[in-house]
Amino acid sequence: MTKGGETATGAVGRPRSERSRRAIIRAAGELLEEQGLRAMTVEGVAQRAGVSKKTIYRWWPRKGVLALDAFYDDWSSAQEELMPDTGTLMGDLRLRARATVRLMTSERLGPTFAALLAEAQSDEALADALREHVLEPLREQARAIFRRAIARDELRPDTDVEVAIDLFQGPLFLRLLYTHAALDEAFADAIAEMALTGVLPRESTT
Amino acid sequence: MTKGGETATGAVGRPRSERSRRAIIRAAGELLEEQGLRAMTVEGVAQRAGVSKKTIYRWWPRKGVLALDAFYDDWSSAQEELMPDTGTLMGDLRLRARATVRLMTSERLGPTFAALLAEAQSDEALADALREHVLEPLREQARAIFRRAIARDELRPDTDVEVAIDLFQGPLFLRLLYTHAALDEAFADAIAEMALTGVLPRESTT
Repeated sequence: MTKGGETATGAVGRPRSERSRRAIIRAAGELLEEQGLRAMTVEGVAQRAGVSKKTIYRWWPRKGVLALDAFYDDWSSAQEELMPDTGTLMGDLRLRARATVRLMTSERLGPTFAALLAEAQSDEALADALREHVLEPLREQARAIFRRAIARDELRPDTDVEVAIDLFQGPLFLRLLYTHAALDEAFADAIAEMALTGVLPRESTT
Repeated sequence: MTKGGETATGAVGRPRSERSRRAIIRAAGELLEEQGLRAMTVEGVAQRAGVSKKTIYRWWPRKGVLALDAFYDDWSSAQEELMPDTGTLMGDLRLRARATVRLMTSERLGPTFAALLAEAQSDEALADALREHVLEPLREQARAIFRRAIARDELRPDTDVEVAIDLFQGPLFLRLLYTHAALDEAFADAIAEMALTGVLPRESTT
């Protein structure tokens, strides 16, 4: 399932049998969708994939990193829409916010993404893999958008891009995880706009 | 430990023995600090408190809500600094952001807060209690700050306060949970300022 046999947590090594590896990843993906990360067990994955638990544990030390690999294939194929290039910062951020909302609310990716983020709080290996393969690439995409805006003179060269990224991404993660408020296109547009123009009224528009 | 015998999850009823209840909450608080939420067990709490597991389960259906009660006492006594009233929105938000950072990085509250937020992803009763007793009160404090700014004509009356709150709080939660970037006073000040003035340059200051 993963491209070119690579997995997000490829550092743990590669099974000799590609067929087994694929069966394990596929079984994990199905069980994630059917049961969620908390209910999914390595035993259940082994049973569905037709392999031993030992085979799974040889390459994935914990179910969290296995779940990340199962999640990663779908996730990575959905990245293109997160990197719009419309020619304006507002255009880029609005499309990126909307695409983020679509990913976060998709039945296949949203609940697993939230569960992986939660699980990472108590699984350091998963936290590292998640940061390296999901969260840091997300930030790098956002950096590219802000750097282009600086190159176009839309933003000052001394703009604190890291703070700007947190300002833009934080609210989306907050709604994914903790509020029952709408995570929809209207919110995406509102966040993109308010992050750019600020909460205080602009002189020129009052 | 909790004020007037009240607990965050008071809805589950009140033990007949106030002494047992206090011993349980205190033991849970100690174990949370020593071991963290994931490692803490109801059995361990029972042992340290000198009660039976059954006594604990009678009032706390899962360890998550017990942990929330143990967390809540300290948390609620630290709320005052989250509600500054400096006379300006910038002053209020800067002090509130700094106070939030102090809470999130305190050894006693920070790790448990992050663990409770994570655990809430797979424990609906805990999620409801956390929202009702911690997250919603946090938002209500922020609403008061923004409403005062509207009353002072610092903000337009039609400001979307809910989006503004997410813009301001989202980055702080994001750094608590997922990035290894600094969660410090400089970040607090930067977020307060950028949320107010926006990422784009202001006409009047270019």
